[in-house]
Amino acid sequence: MNARTKVMYLNPVGTSAYDEVFADMARKFKCPDTEVHIASLNPNSVAPEMNNLEYRAYESLIVADTVKAARQAALSGFDAMAIGCFYDPALLDAREISGDTAIVGPCQASITAALNVANNFSIIIGRTKWEDQMKQTVHEYGYGQKLASFEAVGLRVEEFHRNPAETRKQLELAAERAVEESKAESIILGCTLEVGFYAELQKFLHGRFSANVPVIDCSIAALKAAEGAAWQKRIGWTNSRVWGMEPPPESELERFGVFRGDYEFGNLIKVPTDG
Amino acid sequence: MNARTKVMYLNPVGTSAYDEVFADMARKFKCPDTEVHIASLNPNSVAPEMNNLEYRAYESLIVADTVKAARQAALSGFDAMAIGCFYDPALLDAREISGDTAIVGPCQASITAALNVANNFSIIIGRTKWEDQMKQTVHEYGYGQKLASFEAVGLRVEEFHRNPAETRKQLELAAERAVEESKAESIILGCTLEVGFYAELQKFLHGRFSANVPVIDCSIAALKAAEGAAWQKRIGWTNSRVWGMEPPPESELERFGVFRGDYEFGNLIKVPTDG
Amino acid sequence: MNARTKVMYLNPVGTSAYDEVFADMARKFKCPDTEVHIASLNPNSVAPEMNNLEYRAYESLIVADTVKAARQAALSGFDAMAIGCFYDPALLDAREISGDTAIVGPCQASITAALNVANNFSIIIGRTKWEDQMKQTVHEYGYGQKLASFEAVGLRVEEFHRNPAETRKQLELAAERAVEESKAESIILGCTLEVGFYAELQKFLHGRFSANVPVIDCSIAALKAAEGAAWQKRIGWTNSRVWGMEPPPESELERFGVFRGDYEFGNLIKVPTDG
Amino acid sequence: MNARTKVMYLNPVGTSAYDEVFADMARKFKCPDTEVHIASLNPNSVAPEMNNLEYRAYESLIVADTVKAARQAALSGFDAMAIGCFYDPALLDAREISGDTAIVGPCQASITAALNVANNFSIIIGRTKWEDQMKQTVHEYGYGQKLASFEAVGLRVEEFHRNPAETRKQLELAAERAVEESKAESIILGCTLEVGFYAELQKFLHGRFSANVPVIDCSIAALKAAEGAAWQKRIGWTNSRVWGMEPPPESELERFGVFRGDYEFGNLIKVPTDG
Amino acid sequence: MNARTKVMYLNPVGTSAYDEVFADMARKFKCPDTEVHIASLNPNSVAPEMNNLEYRAYESLIVADTVKAARQAALSGFDAMAIGCFYDPALLDAREISGDTAIVGPCQASITAALNVANNFSIIIGRTKWEDQMKQTVHEYGYGQKLASFEAVGLRVEEFHRNPAETRKQLELAAERAVEESKAESIILGCTLEVGFYAELQKFLHGRFSANVPVIDCSIAALKAAEGAAWQKRIGWTNSRVWGMEPPPESELERFGVFRGDYEFGNLIKVPTDG
Amino acid sequence: MNARTKVMYLNPVGTSAYDEVFADMARKFKCPDTEVHIASLNPNSVAPEMNNLEYRAYESLIVADTVKAARQAALSGFDAMAIGCFYDPALLDAREISGDTAIVGPCQASITAALNVANNFSIIIGRTKWEDQMKQTVHEYGYGQKLASFEAVGLRVEEFHRNPAETRKQLELAAERAVEESKAESIILGCTLEVGFYAELQKFLHGRFSANVPVIDCSIAALKAAEGAAWQKRIGWTNSRVWGMEPPPESELERFGVFRGDYEFGNLIKVPTDG
Repeated sequence: MNARTKVMYLNPVGTSAYDEVFADMARKFKCPDTEVHIASLNPNSVAPEMNNLEYRAYESLIVADTVKAARQAALSGFDAMAIGCFYDPALLDAREISGDTAIVGPCQASITAALNVANNFSIIIGRTKWEDQMKQTVHEYGYGQKLASFEAVGLRVEEFHRNPAETRKQLELAAERAVEESKAESIILGCTLEVGFYAELQKFLHGRFSANVPVIDCSIAALKAAEGAAWQKRIGWTNSRVWGMEPPPESELERFGVFRGDYEFGNLIKVPTDG
Repeated sequence: MNARTKVMYLNPVGTSAYDEVFADMARKFKCPDTEVHIASLNPNSVAPEMNNLEYRAYESLIVADTVKAARQAALSGFDAMAIGCFYDPALLDAREISGDTAIVGPCQASITAALNVANNFSIIIGRTKWEDQMKQTVHEYGYGQKLASFEAVGLRVEEFHRNPAETRKQLELAAERAVEESKAESIILGCTLEVGFYAELQKFLHGRFSANVPVIDCSIAALKAAEGAAWQKRIGWTNSRVWGMEPPPESELERFGVFRGDYEFGNLIKVPTDG
Repeated sequence: MNARTKVMYLNPVGTSAYDEVFADMARKFKCPDTEVHIASLNPNSVAPEMNNLEYRAYESLIVADTVKAARQAALSGFDAMAIGCFYDPALLDAREISGDTAIVGPCQASITAALNVANNFSIIIGRTKWEDQMKQTVHEYGYGQKLASFEAVGLRVEEFHRNPAETRKQLELAAERAVEESKAESIILGCTLEVGFYAELQKFLHGRFSANVPVIDCSIAALKAAEGAAWQKRIGWTNSRVWGMEPPPESELERFGVFRGDYEFGNLIKVPTDG
Repeated sequence: MNARTKVMYLNPVGTSAYDEVFADMARKFKCPDTEVHIASLNPNSVAPEMNNLEYRAYESLIVADTVKAARQAALSGFDAMAIGCFYDPALLDAREISGDTAIVGPCQASITAALNVANNFSIIIGRTKWEDQMKQTVHEYGYGQKLASFEAVGLRVEEFHRNPAETRKQLELAAERAVEESKAESIILGCTLEVGFYAELQKFLHGRFSANVPVIDCSIAALKAAEGAAWQKRIGWTNSRVWGMEPPPESELERFGVFRGDYEFGNLIKVPTDG
Repeated sequence: MNARTKVMYLNPVGTSAYDEVFADMARKFKCPDTEVHIASLNPNSVAPEMNNLEYRAYESLIVADTVKAARQAALSGFDAMAIGCFYDPALLDAREISGDTAIVGPCQASITAALNVANNFSIIIGRTKWEDQMKQTVHEYGYGQKLASFEAVGLRVEEFHRNPAETRKQLELAAERAVEESKAESIILGCTLEVGFYAELQKFLHGRFSANVPVIDCSIAALKAAEGAAWQKRIGWTNSRVWGMEPPPESELERFGVFRGDYEFGNLIKVPTDG
Repeated sequence: MNARTKVMYLNPVGTSAYDEVFADMARKFKCPDTEVHIASLNPNSVAPEMNNLEYRAYESLIVADTVKAARQAALSGFDAMAIGCFYDPALLDAREISGDTAIVGPCQASITAALNVANNFSIIIGRTKWEDQMKQTVHEYGYGQKLASFEAVGLRVEEFHRNPAETRKQLELAAERAVEESKAESIILGCTLEVGFYAELQKFLHGRFSANVPVIDCSIAALKAAEGAAWQKRIGWTNSRVWGMEPPPESELERFGVFRGDYEFGNLIKVPTDG
């Protein structure tokens, strides 16, 4: 089977500040035959200064554009799109109108990855603020029984990369606590901006517990899930379109004047296939 | 205790087509000391032709404005706001940023009302399309064990009032099926536009089963829940602001340039207090 | 809609020792148009010295009279009756035979109130003894996932008002623990005799956490739920009478010689409508 | 280990009409070394005409006496007591105050028995009226996932033995439906007065499905569970008395004047040990 | 009813090292009319040096023989067989092919016993390693809500009896922790080789908490459950053979050449009926 | 990232009758850089005539060899191994001792795939016999809420390919029923030998419902999951080795004389990388 794949990694904010970070991640972890587009939302419609989605109120501002982006990804022939935020915002909404393009999210992708190699997981988050909403999502997905704990490190999104040594220290403490006290068998980094820390943290835990404890980076997990979903598409397993997956009729979209025209992304970095 | 209450019933769409219907409902069912504002969203920012939220993609287009409306309701001194759609769209998002203004939704309000007078409930919906999302919500609220069934009548939102006799007939068949086959003890009308049918349907069921079967109209339930929440406010039980209920810092809203300025509603009908 | 409401607040014990406390509560928190009757059970049939229901064995002694009281409330034209004990004893039994009179309980009412303004709740109880039974009830209602914790303060029912300063101190410690360690977003006072402490405790928590944490008094919550249920009655949403809500046939009651004649309450304080 | 056992089978009503039926059952199914007392409640305190507990309101009238009976059983040195009604009324209340005497109920006993020989079960009940309450109990016990269905035969308690041939026919139809449509692997007869039908019904099902389908009689199951619990007592596994199992202090019982003196049963048939 | 019972207590390993321990237990706790065979697996097919089943990989090596043993027990006319390992290994597999012989396991038996005398339980295990798998089993059985905690004492199976005084100390600490911190109302010893400690531990807890806390020995519980299941057989309640309980056709077993011939046990101690 | 992958697809029976079928499947659906080994178990240790695992008793006979095969796969440097039976037999046991080799199963893989493109799923099985065990597994994985229904077609494993036209017809009827009556949004073929039917069935459903309904072939899903897991390994996310994932000590394996020496597979078809 042909392995040529085209996926979009959407950073669902109006700022392109982190796009390069995710492009690096993609370059390093994508399959050779995958072309990845790192995209962020249109700064004219989503506040370009808003650099985090830690609050539900912030998320509410990016839902419409994220869904429009999904439709655009479908029109542009992407096999799959990952919505790069651990809240998996607008995941099901986007999936409804994305045609044959698969939509995946870091939270679902990370848990699936973790449960391939462990019986349960803890999620390391920035602030306790995030916990209630994420717990709800974990339960909705059906993984409530596999959730060992949430561990907050007391950092906001933008702080993860401000002082990497300090962040590393906090992640180590949180992961140690999860394994020691909550009997976690794997760790999920519950923010796409915890990117860059997983390998060292896993190494630290190996030393600490004399045994492997996989540490899932949710951005990488989302990228790989998008590639996997692209494979599903090739097999023929595209989005269901019955019952809850039924999309709105095109004629009605026209009548309402919604989802018309191309969606313009704010920034776009194209990571080509290898060689 | 003073009973003076000011609540907003938000019709979360850009069209004001149904506002008068809800104003009539409010006039008939509100408490004497309650002032109700029926409001719809700004047609300049939400597609004014879009007259239903049956699809997740449509909902995605009203989330941002609904949250802005909630914040505006708080700034304008409303005690409570009901979001007039049975999906309870953006309920938790709105609640995060609504200050001391309580936010309620028809789905949660209807179930609470039903369980005061019955052990379980069936929800009559327009199309099976709606079922998966609503079922998810019912389970999230914790009421999965009390859900007897969903019953679809094969009507879209705008069709409920097109041929009332036919709608009545379909609601009767669906409710009868729910009670007879799924052992429902109460019926919830799962769309705010099923307004106007509950009393006759309850009467029909009484005749059919020789016993009372309460039929909850979700718009009325939402209005009464808003009044109840306004009472809570008077007692001092306003929105929690710790952990998952923590709102974004005002300084950050300013820095990001979001949620600034007044939100302008599309239409506004003021139903005054009695006498 | 007319707001004239007549509700009974039943203190389901044979002693009238606390009736005045609840009458004060009613005077302060009822709606202006509500008439509240504070009633306790017949001391000739329920041990008049028994001043608490902390044990299941004690509860068993008040079940029959509570159900009879509910039927009497219906015959006497009450819109709703609250059973004033956080175990919600005999709630469903009473509801079966209460005609069109709604029956509510402090536990269910408090949780509904808490979830209007928070995502979860902790319940402060007197002794750990109570926890297992109450937890069972919370789960039965469907709120297991929203329960942050129980916190016991080591006091028996009659001790809550013996040394108010000490009680206040213990409630503060328990509430602080709930918020801090169990991430509770709201607090429910899980005994009707914790009445009188909520406002100060909420103020304390505001100072402690620099943010609002609603503290639900379960007696007030029950009273307001009764008023809300009375509204439901006016709308037409009275007790279902099919399937599990079917009452025994009157002819059989006669044949068995049960539930005949008027039930005589032990004490009765009438709090009239305002003005 | 000595096998001498003394158990009480309580028919928790004020009428002794069915006591002989249960005595026959006990004679046939008890262990040789077991002495069984069939007892009913005091007709002076529980309406002696009331011959069923199909309604919650009826049950409310026997709760106090059932708990008193449990305490009396303990004082009289019974190893265990079965409360002979499939609702398992007052089970936990009785257990709280029954000292070292184990208390069991037909519902819990039947399910335990069924799951020893099958993966799931259906419960055949008289009327749909019973279903909601029993379902709640089954879920409380933790067996919600093992419940295949409830099947109602349209008979009241007193009708089961009125026309045995017709009852047999209805039980066959219900059991067949349970196995065929709900994939039940075992059948539980969900009323102690369905006594006398299990063996024939099991034979019928064997013929119908060419395979064994165990049919659990809940009275026999309760008796055997009582004998089993008596064994537990001999091993030393008596009622826990910490946390939720803590009984009220004897001094308080005295102060309140409750649970004093001997409880007088209404009727008592003594089935002696064999030989 | 005749009480003559023949049960097998299978120690599902290839070593007979512990058989005498279980024979002693049986002698002490069996019913007078019960004949118990303590058996271990065939050392020629199961590694005779492998003296524990702490790892899933070890269990995988005894599954086939355990199922063969169950079939053999049926052919040899045993009423019931207990599989003597707290993981309840191969329980459902064995039950499928054991004809009319009931199959029980220590985990299920212990929980059933515990819930007869308490509302919840904690399980004391050797190492945290065991917890995940056992927790899964507890949830599968439906008892997730009744599980207070697992408490590990840091001992491997073979270490429980190496230094009894130290083991006793560790069990006391663990049980105390369970009752004190997790509010356990009963204790289950979650390894058949914790045999011999329950009585003293229960006594210790009684002293420590001034109240009874039943301590369930899982080997004894399994034996008594086997006796109880034998009673069920006499009543006629043998294994269901429809749907999930359907056994493979004998003709197919023949065609495949599986489950042919007698299974030879490794060791067999016969504990006769009394007198 | 390099894409070179080596995975084993284990047909966990002693017969190689179907190996070629799975080799064809692998040739068609594997990634270009993947080398797949189709292997079956050693016919000398697993009954070579036994061509299905429809009964738990049959499964019990292949558990030990499947776990040994997993360990061998690890020793032979496979990145991942799929256990080719929809019961996911011995999945967790194999995973414990497979070193860094990931172990996946068709059931888990299929559900993950289905939920990427739909909100729920129905599983088409051969006989109702299979349902109880598979339902248990689905719930264990956390997907109970997403399970629309099981649909049995009345065929044994070996019959699926006997009369393809008839099988096709039965699958169509079952899938239609699932979508129509149980509101399934996707279909999972719940037996690896339903291989070869998915594409046509999906086409049929598209015609029947005028909309896409993905039909997941569980063998292909397992293969792709193995490839995905191999990617995880490359990223560093190998099996956790703490708590429940802790493997037995090598020294103990040696002492017990278990898992020593190479495991010899029964048959082995090597499907090389492309080009």
